[in-house]
Amino acid sequence: MADKIPILKIGRFLVVTIQVDMHDRLAMALQDDLTQRVVSDQAKGVLIDISSLEVVDSFIGRMLGNIAAMTRTLGAETVVVGMRPAVAITIVELGLSLENVHTALNVDKGMAMLTRQLETPAEAPRHEHHPE
Amino acid sequence: MADKIPILKIGRFLVVTIQVDMHDRLAMALQDDLTQRVVSDQAKGVLIDISSLEVVDSFIGRMLGNIAAMTRTLGAETVVVGMRPAVAITIVELGLSLENVHTALNVDKGMAMLTRQLETPAEAPRHEHHPE
Repeated sequence: MADKIPILKIGRFLVVTIQVDMHDRLAMALQDDLTQRVVSDQAKGVLIDISSLEVVDSFIGRMLGNIAAMTRTLGAETVVVGMRPAVAITIVELGLSLENVHTALNVDKGMAMLTRQLETPAEAPRHEHHPE
Repeated sequence: MADKIPILKIGRFLVVTIQVDMHDRLAMALQDDLTQRVVSDQAKGVLIDISSLEVVDSFIGRMLGNIAAMTRTLGAETVVVGMRPAVAITIVELGLSLENVHTALNVDKGMAMLTRQLETPAEAPRHEHHPE
């Protein structure tokens, strides 16, 4: 168990919940699986729930950035959802730049955001504010 | 980490992916969290993805049955999705009766099934076949 993180297809989107400690091999497997699934499922977006992460280090930050950059190349935006306030603080303090990564409060809002972007393809801004 | 399993709200449904070994305390916490979330989110269905489970024992089987019975009492049906063929064989061989539990191939089909049931509230049959 836990040698693969399940990827759920929900409508046009792929949903992943991070529940286990990410080590190198698992992170690589997740990147591989996600990029393959974006292609095979013709997904338009990837949602990664990190609500069970109490800490985010530069390794996780880089992984999220990588996934976002890879899936964007394949036509799918990545939204990180469920970030705890403490994690947001850490990310800023560590100076991690989650450049390609969108964020939303939860999966529902993340899906709504992606759906809006899909409906208005006219160069949606990459760094939105989500006051919802 | 892994002292709680994240519960994602997606539309009218709650989605859970089982990724870690379920011990007693974690199973109890999941039951508690799910029943509370069904009420607070007014969810109409619960989808439990077990695609990362390579084995299902009587403990897991009982947990799934309990969750389904509890959420039904609160007005939400439970669908177990992503069951591996080997797990289906084990369940039959162990004689586990997943009485209240619906099953579907994946989350997408499970959600479609729940949505159909919600749209035709006229006594949907409890043990459907899902040839999709």
